[in-house]
Amino acid sequence: MLYVAWADGDLEPVEIRAICTRLGTTEGMDEDYQQFLEGWLDPENPPSATDLTTLLAAIRTAAASMPAGERRSLAALGVELAAAAGHETSAAERQALEAIETNLGLSGSEAVRRLLSPERAAPDPMGALPAFELAAMTRLLDGDQWVIRDKVRGILSRPEFSYRYGLDRDNYRAQVLDWAEALAVEGIGALSFPEDVGGGGDLGAFIAAFETVAFHDLSLLVKLGVQFGLFGGSILQLGTQRHHEKYLPKVGALELPGCFAMTETGHGSNVHDLETVARFESQTDEFVLHTPSPAARKDYIGNAALHGRLATVFAQLEIGSEHHGVHAFLVPIRNEDGTMCAGVGVEDCGDKLGLNGIDNGRLWFDQVRIPRQNLLDRFAQVDADGIYTSPIASPTKRFFVMLGTLVGGRVSVALAGLSTSKSALAIAVRYGARRRQFGPEGAAETVLLDYRTHQRRLMPRLATTYALDFALSHLAAQYVDSSADNRREVESLAAGLKAYSTWHATDTIQTCREACGGQGYLAVNRLAALKADSDVFTTFEGDNTVLLQLQAKSLLTGYARQFGEMNVFGLAKYLGGQVATAVAELNPLVTRRTDEAHLQDREFQLGAFDWREKHLLSTLARRMKKRLDSGMDSFDALVEVQDHVVALAEAHTERLILEQFAASIDGCEDSSLRTMLGTLCDLYALHRIEADRGWFLEHGYLESAKAKAIRQQVNKLCLKVRQQAVPLVDAFGIPDPVLGAPIAFS
Amino acid sequence: MLYVAWADGDLEPVEIRAICTRLGTTEGMDEDYQQFLEGWLDPENPPSATDLTTLLAAIRTAAASMPAGERRSLAALGVELAAAAGHETSAAERQALEAIETNLGLSGSEAVRRLLSPERAAPDPMGALPAFELAAMTRLLDGDQWVIRDKVRGILSRPEFSYRYGLDRDNYRAQVLDWAEALAVEGIGALSFPEDVGGGGDLGAFIAAFETVAFHDLSLLVKLGVQFGLFGGSILQLGTQRHHEKYLPKVGALELPGCFAMTETGHGSNVHDLETVARFESQTDEFVLHTPSPAARKDYIGNAALHGRLATVFAQLEIGSEHHGVHAFLVPIRNEDGTMCAGVGVEDCGDKLGLNGIDNGRLWFDQVRIPRQNLLDRFAQVDADGIYTSPIASPTKRFFVMLGTLVGGRVSVALAGLSTSKSALAIAVRYGARRRQFGPEGAAETVLLDYRTHQRRLMPRLATTYALDFALSHLAAQYVDSSADNRREVESLAAGLKAYSTWHATDTIQTCREACGGQGYLAVNRLAALKADSDVFTTFEGDNTVLLQLQAKSLLTGYARQFGEMNVFGLAKYLGGQVATAVAELNPLVTRRTDEAHLQDREFQLGAFDWREKHLLSTLARRMKKRLDSGMDSFDALVEVQDHVVALAEAHTERLILEQFAASIDGCEDSSLRTMLGTLCDLYALHRIEADRGWFLEHGYLESAKAKAIRQQVNKLCLKVRQQAVPLVDAFGIPDPVLGAPIAFS
Repeated sequence: MLYVAWADGDLEPVEIRAICTRLGTTEGMDEDYQQFLEGWLDPENPPSATDLTTLLAAIRTAAASMPAGERRSLAALGVELAAAAGHETSAAERQALEAIETNLGLSGSEAVRRLLSPERAAPDPMGALPAFELAAMTRLLDGDQWVIRDKVRGILSRPEFSYRYGLDRDNYRAQVLDWAEALAVEGIGALSFPEDVGGGGDLGAFIAAFETVAFHDLSLLVKLGVQFGLFGGSILQLGTQRHHEKYLPKVGALELPGCFAMTETGHGSNVHDLETVARFESQTDEFVLHTPSPAARKDYIGNAALHGRLATVFAQLEIGSEHHGVHAFLVPIRNEDGTMCAGVGVEDCGDKLGLNGIDNGRLWFDQVRIPRQNLLDRFAQVDADGIYTSPIASPTKRFFVMLGTLVGGRVSVALAGLSTSKSALAIAVRYGARRRQFGPEGAAETVLLDYRTHQRRLMPRLATTYALDFALSHLAAQYVDSSADNRREVESLAAGLKAYSTWHATDTIQTCREACGGQGYLAVNRLAALKADSDVFTTFEGDNTVLLQLQAKSLLTGYARQFGEMNVFGLAKYLGGQVATAVAELNPLVTRRTDEAHLQDREFQLGAFDWREKHLLSTLARRMKKRLDSGMDSFDALVEVQDHVVALAEAHTERLILEQFAASIDGCEDSSLRTMLGTLCDLYALHRIEADRGWFLEHGYLESAKAKAIRQQVNKLCLKVRQQAVPLVDAFGIPDPVLGAPIAFS
Repeated sequence: MLYVAWADGDLEPVEIRAICTRLGTTEGMDEDYQQFLEGWLDPENPPSATDLTTLLAAIRTAAASMPAGERRSLAALGVELAAAAGHETSAAERQALEAIETNLGLSGSEAVRRLLSPERAAPDPMGALPAFELAAMTRLLDGDQWVIRDKVRGILSRPEFSYRYGLDRDNYRAQVLDWAEALAVEGIGALSFPEDVGGGGDLGAFIAAFETVAFHDLSLLVKLGVQFGLFGGSILQLGTQRHHEKYLPKVGALELPGCFAMTETGHGSNVHDLETVARFESQTDEFVLHTPSPAARKDYIGNAALHGRLATVFAQLEIGSEHHGVHAFLVPIRNEDGTMCAGVGVEDCGDKLGLNGIDNGRLWFDQVRIPRQNLLDRFAQVDADGIYTSPIASPTKRFFVMLGTLVGGRVSVALAGLSTSKSALAIAVRYGARRRQFGPEGAAETVLLDYRTHQRRLMPRLATTYALDFALSHLAAQYVDSSADNRREVESLAAGLKAYSTWHATDTIQTCREACGGQGYLAVNRLAALKADSDVFTTFEGDNTVLLQLQAKSLLTGYARQFGEMNVFGLAKYLGGQVATAVAELNPLVTRRTDEAHLQDREFQLGAFDWREKHLLSTLARRMKKRLDSGMDSFDALVEVQDHVVALAEAHTERLILEQFAASIDGCEDSSLRTMLGTLCDLYALHRIEADRGWFLEHGYLESAKAKAIRQQVNKLCLKVRQQAVPLVDAFGIPDPVLGAPIAFS
């Protein structure tokens, strides 16, 4: 308990003093024992790292002699420790310990699990002791929002959140609704809503909660996302005070389930050309919503098939003969008794690849009337006379500002992708650390993780997952703090990272499934659900390929701005400069250096990522310019260089990820964490360079010998990370019942 | 009908004369009409390609004026054609036409579909007319076994084989059993069994049928594979005449459902170390089967949870104190009334990622007694006195010979992977040819297939699928004709191609799912099932990573044999030769050539693949030798160079694929097919070189300019293949009802 108090590093001196006071007033406590404890609890004189390490070793020794069933609370562990030190704990002392545990606000079993897990999860002789403080790593990854994360971990660990397999669709949907309601009761749903309408007023907390829920069933996650993020978020971001007051309390409590009806059968990514119409009728002061064709039906809409009662519907606003483009309207779709509202059609999307706990459906409207007040009117208003006003004059800009407020969905999906990668790696790494197959003649079979192919499959993905964690924390922080000034920047960042994170998740889960063989194919080991449910992440909240093009276009725009209107003179001048830089960097002494110190030099790594991005950007600009100058339509020109566009967006995203990772390591004060993260960062950087060595060789940035040296270095780093792989996945802090998979445990 | 008769190219003159006779004896046929038809049916004077093309155009014009519902038979089409030519068809003539259609032995609706499909599936202005004869391409892909393939297509197109969505597990398993029984009734199950026990005596036909069934539900496929391929196959290959007579008739008719119980919970790939024991007891003349530990339970066994009554069980044979290694035994597990046999335990594997129509289970044995005769004794016999004899003296060799007979499973899975790739591509290409999203300002939205990124995603995979088709046909033929002499060679070939084909399938299905966006996520569009069900292909019948190592080891063995025992002298001499070759090939005039003629020169492509493989093999041998010479255990040495091992196996497999593709093109007599396949082959070869350009650049085989030229060439080839993409997937010959996915149709 003392260990947790200090190692957590988060107790304020005032809290520690409270514990001391508590100790002092405990009846029946042995005085020596009390003094001993108080000695450890002097805020002026905290224990050293060495003290804590010694303490941890003692805790683990004591725990090893306890029956597994009893290792549930810190208090019980403390009693055992005392016994090991020859001290018989009295009933009163035990009570005091339990009281302190409660005061500390820790989930005892969770804390004990974290303390002991490296020992349990690496039972084979090949597993090294953790080279870093596990709890501190979790704390670092958890970041500022660690309190809400721990709260959600606690809720999800409750028995009623146990996974149930083999449910049919109806029961699964009902189960997911129950779970979502349980989270709403805990206030999770309204975390991001304003405090004056009963919300938590903390967007960052909502996002962190969402990221944590992504360790659990992903239908539940998407249910949250639909109800609180998209539906609630659209009212919050596109509506005004009267909408907030009227709806958000019920939305946050899940008393008013709703839909976010944007996508149409014929229009997914291309929101601008949606076909649903909302025509203003001044006689009745109403909008009339209508679906003009089957392709204009709202499709894949979560909550539509069963539970939703109100929907935010995106439609083309028409007033008389004027077309004002896409706007959002609140449309009642289902009555409280579950029947559909007049004029609203619905169809269940039926079975899906995954997320079958979500009642996706299609919606269509046959001249459905809603009051004028149901226009979400933050960015555009229509008065009773049908006069249209907007604080944003440009219709194009207005459209992008409206859509831009919804970037939270992309941020959230990027984070959810990260969590699913973590779950899959936790399962595959723990299994791989124990499962044996084949081996040298006459000896025990070899543990899977000791095979180079297995290391090659899992370790670079583990490193990328750590890298992404820091990049996405940065993204979330930027999003939470975003203003009109950096809106475009955050959107671009979110676009690239959403694509990168979700493709990484798809790839990682697939690899982990295969790495677990037949066991990975069984539903009970959860990779099946992770794979099926997360698959749509690459498609929804913006198709990844489309997002990368968005991002690249924004880079090009920035680039063009840098040179006025990208006139020939400016461009040529820049390109000249670029070549000069290239020559400077392509010093043969650098392109040929193959020593470890150089390869692990962050400057070299960052330089390589940066050079690639700049080179791709300037050559893309040149290619685009050539086409535009020759009179080609800008759309056609972009299509012709689309593979280049995608390569640029990926290179840009990887540079950002590496930069964030490097900056986070620099900012980390714990040297053991810094060393471990540095190794992961080396692996991430060198593995990415290795993966793209075709490009680097082609452009003369690497020579052959260096490419080979990088490959050897990646192998060495894989082995090094493998030694710490189990504590590294344990540090993700996924509670055992949430991880679920039996193969992840002995 | 005439068109089909000729274009199919498969009618013998004698058959054509039979049609003429039939025409001559038809009552009430207009004489002019009859002569006209006979003019087209002169075997001595076949119509020219131009005639046939003109005829096809006329057919399509006529068909366009027919209601879709009526385009079901060739006869109906003929009547319409005649009407277009001003001829009113009499009832008798119509009857005669129908009789001929039956005589031709064609599935009318299928033939009509094939005739008309390119027009229907490429309705957009961007789709070019097919540059090749679609039916001829299908015929080429179908190969020698086209009759059985068409038969299976016909069966699977029946209404009772329609897909049903949302079935619960029990009903799904029952449905799959029904389907399997329907196929057994048609004789598909017993195709490979000897004719003297009621089988078809045609292993090639069974494999082709299996490949075709893989266009349909994959649980059905695996049900077939388990029952007829693995269970029946083990009796056929490991048993002797009395086993064949006693069991195969019932196995082939699916009257005796059975299991293939090899894998154990603790031992998947490592069959050698299975733990289940079969102890011989001479007093009772029985074997006693026993499961000594939970890890020794037979696991993931198809047919075990519900339907299986008899199982081929692999167990360690013990006679007294002698251990004879793994042998196969027939063990009754379930009585006819569905209850378990005494001593046999069973547990359902429960929900799985996919293949939920298969009743996988775990089996264990508690001192289960079976008669001595139940040893499958082709390769080893035990007499009543417990004397063990075998025609193969070496236990190691015996073990590998026994396992080797089961290579058919790998061949079949490789082919199934190919079929699933075809289904996914057929869906995604047809959808991509119609679906529009975004576009230039003021114009219609652009068809997905016209985006370069979309072409880059689908076209290389389409080319690889064609490439694999020829390589796997070669593999199947080699397997069907295999003897003791080339057994190892076929095994090695099967190992590499199984891994390549199944990984290709996983990758292709994933890409196709993403390319279809939200539509791809709906169960009804079949990509969900394809993805989930085929996923385990990479794991079962040998884990892919393990298979690649098997293959590489066999290459190393062959290499070592080439130099005696790989002594330093021989090796050094060889390596000297290798370097000389390398220098010769690395002529700067070649490494720098970037012209299209050179890049599309098959010699250049084959040379690159071959050089890569030789280089990887010789350097691997050198690295292995260094380690072995320094006293390292061979197992440890292999683990250290495992990434190199895998790269070699992949390079070897790709070289084989390209060689087979090139040889098949050379052997193709139809010039339009040859041109089309040549383009696909160029795309396959150059795309693979592009994908591995890091290696080629690193080893000096390419220079930068050439790598860039290859990238441009791949883009050009993608565009070229895109123009023919719809007919190319139509040529796979997947019947519409079997393809299923509504998005694949207008």
